[in-house]
Amino acid sequence: MIKVGIVGGTGYTGVELLRILAQHPEVSLKVITSRQEAGLAVDELFPSLRKYVSLKFVNPEKAKLDKCDIVFFATPNGVAMRQARELVDAGVKVIDLSADFRIKDISEWEKWYGMSHACPELVSEAVYGLPEVNRKQIKKARIIANPGCYPTAVQLGFLPLIEAKVIDTNSLIADTKSGVSGAGRKAEVHTLFPEAADNFKSYGVPGHRHLPEIRQGLSNVAGKLVGLTFVPHLTPMVRGIHATLYAKLMSTKTKVDLQTLFEERYKNEHFVDVLPAGSHPETRSVRGSNYCRIAVHRPQGGQTVVVLAVTDNLVKGAAGQAVQNMNLMLGFSETLGIEHVPILP
Amino acid sequence: MIKVGIVGGTGYTGVELLRILAQHPEVSLKVITSRQEAGLAVDELFPSLRKYVSLKFVNPEKAKLDKCDIVFFATPNGVAMRQARELVDAGVKVIDLSADFRIKDISEWEKWYGMSHACPELVSEAVYGLPEVNRKQIKKARIIANPGCYPTAVQLGFLPLIEAKVIDTNSLIADTKSGVSGAGRKAEVHTLFPEAADNFKSYGVPGHRHLPEIRQGLSNVAGKLVGLTFVPHLTPMVRGIHATLYAKLMSTKTKVDLQTLFEERYKNEHFVDVLPAGSHPETRSVRGSNYCRIAVHRPQGGQTVVVLAVTDNLVKGAAGQAVQNMNLMLGFSETLGIEHVPILP
Amino acid sequence: MIKVGIVGGTGYTGVELLRILAQHPEVSLKVITSRQEAGLAVDELFPSLRKYVSLKFVNPEKAKLDKCDIVFFATPNGVAMRQARELVDAGVKVIDLSADFRIKDISEWEKWYGMSHACPELVSEAVYGLPEVNRKQIKKARIIANPGCYPTAVQLGFLPLIEAKVIDTNSLIADTKSGVSGAGRKAEVHTLFPEAADNFKSYGVPGHRHLPEIRQGLSNVAGKLVGLTFVPHLTPMVRGIHATLYAKLMSTKTKVDLQTLFEERYKNEHFVDVLPAGSHPETRSVRGSNYCRIAVHRPQGGQTVVVLAVTDNLVKGAAGQAVQNMNLMLGFSETLGIEHVPILP
Amino acid sequence: MIKVGIVGGTGYTGVELLRILAQHPEVSLKVITSRQEAGLAVDELFPSLRKYVSLKFVNPEKAKLDKCDIVFFATPNGVAMRQARELVDAGVKVIDLSADFRIKDISEWEKWYGMSHACPELVSEAVYGLPEVNRKQIKKARIIANPGCYPTAVQLGFLPLIEAKVIDTNSLIADTKSGVSGAGRKAEVHTLFPEAADNFKSYGVPGHRHLPEIRQGLSNVAGKLVGLTFVPHLTPMVRGIHATLYAKLMSTKTKVDLQTLFEERYKNEHFVDVLPAGSHPETRSVRGSNYCRIAVHRPQGGQTVVVLAVTDNLVKGAAGQAVQNMNLMLGFSETLGIEHVPILP
Repeated sequence: MIKVGIVGGTGYTGVELLRILAQHPEVSLKVITSRQEAGLAVDELFPSLRKYVSLKFVNPEKAKLDKCDIVFFATPNGVAMRQARELVDAGVKVIDLSADFRIKDISEWEKWYGMSHACPELVSEAVYGLPEVNRKQIKKARIIANPGCYPTAVQLGFLPLIEAKVIDTNSLIADTKSGVSGAGRKAEVHTLFPEAADNFKSYGVPGHRHLPEIRQGLSNVAGKLVGLTFVPHLTPMVRGIHATLYAKLMSTKTKVDLQTLFEERYKNEHFVDVLPAGSHPETRSVRGSNYCRIAVHRPQGGQTVVVLAVTDNLVKGAAGQAVQNMNLMLGFSETLGIEHVPILP
Repeated sequence: MIKVGIVGGTGYTGVELLRILAQHPEVSLKVITSRQEAGLAVDELFPSLRKYVSLKFVNPEKAKLDKCDIVFFATPNGVAMRQARELVDAGVKVIDLSADFRIKDISEWEKWYGMSHACPELVSEAVYGLPEVNRKQIKKARIIANPGCYPTAVQLGFLPLIEAKVIDTNSLIADTKSGVSGAGRKAEVHTLFPEAADNFKSYGVPGHRHLPEIRQGLSNVAGKLVGLTFVPHLTPMVRGIHATLYAKLMSTKTKVDLQTLFEERYKNEHFVDVLPAGSHPETRSVRGSNYCRIAVHRPQGGQTVVVLAVTDNLVKGAAGQAVQNMNLMLGFSETLGIEHVPILP
Repeated sequence: MIKVGIVGGTGYTGVELLRILAQHPEVSLKVITSRQEAGLAVDELFPSLRKYVSLKFVNPEKAKLDKCDIVFFATPNGVAMRQARELVDAGVKVIDLSADFRIKDISEWEKWYGMSHACPELVSEAVYGLPEVNRKQIKKARIIANPGCYPTAVQLGFLPLIEAKVIDTNSLIADTKSGVSGAGRKAEVHTLFPEAADNFKSYGVPGHRHLPEIRQGLSNVAGKLVGLTFVPHLTPMVRGIHATLYAKLMSTKTKVDLQTLFEERYKNEHFVDVLPAGSHPETRSVRGSNYCRIAVHRPQGGQTVVVLAVTDNLVKGAAGQAVQNMNLMLGFSETLGIEHVPILP
Repeated sequence: MIKVGIVGGTGYTGVELLRILAQHPEVSLKVITSRQEAGLAVDELFPSLRKYVSLKFVNPEKAKLDKCDIVFFATPNGVAMRQARELVDAGVKVIDLSADFRIKDISEWEKWYGMSHACPELVSEAVYGLPEVNRKQIKKARIIANPGCYPTAVQLGFLPLIEAKVIDTNSLIADTKSGVSGAGRKAEVHTLFPEAADNFKSYGVPGHRHLPEIRQGLSNVAGKLVGLTFVPHLTPMVRGIHATLYAKLMSTKTKVDLQTLFEERYKNEHFVDVLPAGSHPETRSVRGSNYCRIAVHRPQGGQTVVVLAVTDNLVKGAAGQAVQNMNLMLGFSETLGIEHVPILP
């Protein structure tokens, strides 16, 4: 059994990590921190965890994180970058679910996140934890930058097309929709039930922090800077991401068999499920699970490719993918403890 | 007071027509038909109409529609095309909220709707009831093809760009989201609450009936056939359409002031509200009202224009626009009886 | 045209007052205050009001409320009691939508609301604004304590039974369910969309502030202290109150015709709609309107009476009833400006 | 590995059984029938089951159910009573999730279900599958009548009070609220999303089929006929039951410690979780799990006891409890395969 710590366990990513780790056969949860809720039993804040988690939140100052084998950061941006160095130096593996280590270009990160980076040298060491791209590096990593929710779905959707060099990468469009849990468990007016229910809107059209993250990932694969328009929307559901992706086939590639391309790309990827031709994936078909389901279309046989990709933003888009990375780092089976059948309806 | 009849009043478009017409100061509701509910009091089926509608549903065979000044068809596709001829010949004005008279190319219509058209000659006479484009013709029309819900939002969003010839019309993209009332009040599994709630999905990606309607409208304005990718989605809310539209600025037009372009185009259109630069319209900001609110963006100053347009699919996308057309046809003030302040929250 | 002011216009009660008053034919909105949003255009915060409200929020210190004919307080508890005195003395009529003037027993109020009352003498003068009970007094009142949302539905449901003395008033039960807008537009975790959606729970079972208010109203009618168990629940919808009320028929009254009793009691009440026997009112049948719809049952002909009452918590449960009171106070038709047909679906 | 068959696998109870059984370590799914979907792959209808269920639906006539060790009926009422006899005689254990074997009084059953019973003799043999009451008999049963969703929550809530003889059982009240999945996966208008969303209503107040079932169970425990008013409501969520129960303490029992009473009663029941005093259980705290969480209150120290009980209607209220019964019948650990941590949010 490995010893696991969680920093910042009161948000939706934190409670989801707890749900998964509480039943992971190789994990012993040792510590979970929260400055605000220190002393409170975890299952008092989250009664869903009664009988499964007996820990109390502890003050970060008193948490003996360095006694853990691995520590997850489920914190707001700007926390992990101050604490990761010490843990890594102590031989503790780190998985950061925040954005602190995702963007390699420090000045780009500082522009989008509005603060100075406290630990640039770990940024260059950190491995971007998208197993379908970086599995080998993840296995050897000391620190993982766990991808954002939108970036996971968008990258998995575009990857086969970019790797196969069949689309024009100068004008990609990602029209994405997220459940409200993606906004976190923070007291804010705009995500109150009466504001978000029975309503649909876009946000961040001039610029959203996941844009540079997605662009970096896709550009790495393309071998050049890609052009991307990224429009996120808030949809009145609790969990789920739906990415609708648009790209133009290059005129020399119009004979490509897109269905086969996607199936081949992901045939060995347990958590990426390419649906039969003509399918329309639903977010609920992955609810509570670590799957990404994808369908690829070419409406009316034209030049525009439409990719539809769905994930649960809290699982494959956050906590589930973090545990998938943990499994890889520690040599466990990649699917250990994250084989949840989706909840439908 | 004009005498009004409604054919097919048991669907969502029907009950919305009733809500609006019941308080229209120039309207006297005379007859409402339903084969299935004949004999039932309207307000027994829809208790929201108690005190406002005292009619009973009558069997279509017994309805004296030719005594009306104007008749609305709120019927499934294929009904109005069989009954409109007789009414028009009797001097009754007709507004068809179904798709029977929307597509000018009969063979195109027959392909998408899967039936033979019963009344092609009225198709050519029918005026497409989008007042912001065809106001003059609507005023003189004997029969109106009331636009579909998606087509209203998508056309209003693209129009200023196409009219001003600033975008490439070969590869327009309309990523649209609809509340579930758009699917109608029919007993079907896929729109049951437990299927549609807490879920998001696309549908009809290979081809949707609103595609030819939108393409026809935009092509008329462009003066040539436009290229359009149209992807509709179902979102867990009752009412509302959100259209997210993508187009590429022509390289010679990158200096255009998009905000001014939209404001100028719609400055005299009461029901089209161009929001301040940087806005993100929400569907609830038009809930229960006849408004279309629009914002235009150019993310990161690039070549891609993003237009955001919202409507209430049952009002500006159906019954409200139908009454707007009626007002124009009968010489009333265009806004008479459809000045509802949106319900928020 | 009367001059109207609103104190505290940024909550849900405030925006609903604005929606209604903006179209009231005798009202001229003169001033709306908000300390936090002073200077902001009202329709920037609430785009639903574009074209209908052109005011800006003003700082309470600078608001000339004494120039108004009538002032509404849509403020948190504890504000109106500090400002009403001055307005009343200046001859301005006051309608308080908060709880400051609802409970006649000052010590009881102070116990439940946790503060000292700043203006006890106005409490005794204030008229409890339930027109179906206090119409006469309302017409002459200088200050109205507008009822709470639960109290309106619960009292209207129990009234006919208590007035007719057919039930045992020692053990009334009110099992009530509210949409989340009832909790207000405050940034709090427990009413976030991901907390309140797809979820159902009770709250305040040991004691809720509406208990003494309901008990006072029912006791007044009964002529003695009633016994009441009041259990409120939060249900994942935006608007609506559903009260399910239980009472025991007195053994000497088992032959009473409950349906007739209710119909007679409310036959002259425009906004209380007694449904036909056997009905189950739905909250959406009153959405956006000032109606209360009621059905009365006696399951299996037993001794237990079950009353079902629905309202829109923001209209009949708050802003609509406030305008109904204003109409009465100012001698307008009681229904003026509040004849909205409910929005369904 | 035991061989399991499911009759009628296309409803919500069916897909939930599949979700659970697909990961049950002792189960091998052998056959699943559906007349309507015969030939279709199960995971084509329910993509959530991809990678977990590889069966196709088979026509009931061709299904070799008698080769199974145990067969679940997830069918509409009236099916199991025609097929169970043959299976039981062949030595196949049967768990019926419909209502066919729940009511011991055949004429009562026939009155409420509106059909003649085809197999009365198995009704008397069938064990009512509420393990917290009938565990011993379940272990030896050949056929189980799996309880209804409301009856499970209501009985678990009232049991400790009735067993301890501390309440008046003549006038129990059960005010219950259900998510819409409780209405099943049938194409019907009243459970369409636009009908059920943003809406709350009661139904079946004059009489609901779960009334006789609950009354039978409670009367068995009380040793005499109990008096029960049962009012079910539909709430806009997918899963979940919330029962709010009211009873009057007998005047001789007002000193009873209710919290201890409940804790003692359920201390050995893994799936019944008595919350700390003062709690308000939420339906989401059991979402996707087999738990029933209960809190007991005595508002203002009065004579009325309020019990709050929540379950997931598809798990403890249907499929999960069925598997719990299967575990007992086959000698497995009672919790085997149904230890799912609830999904929150």
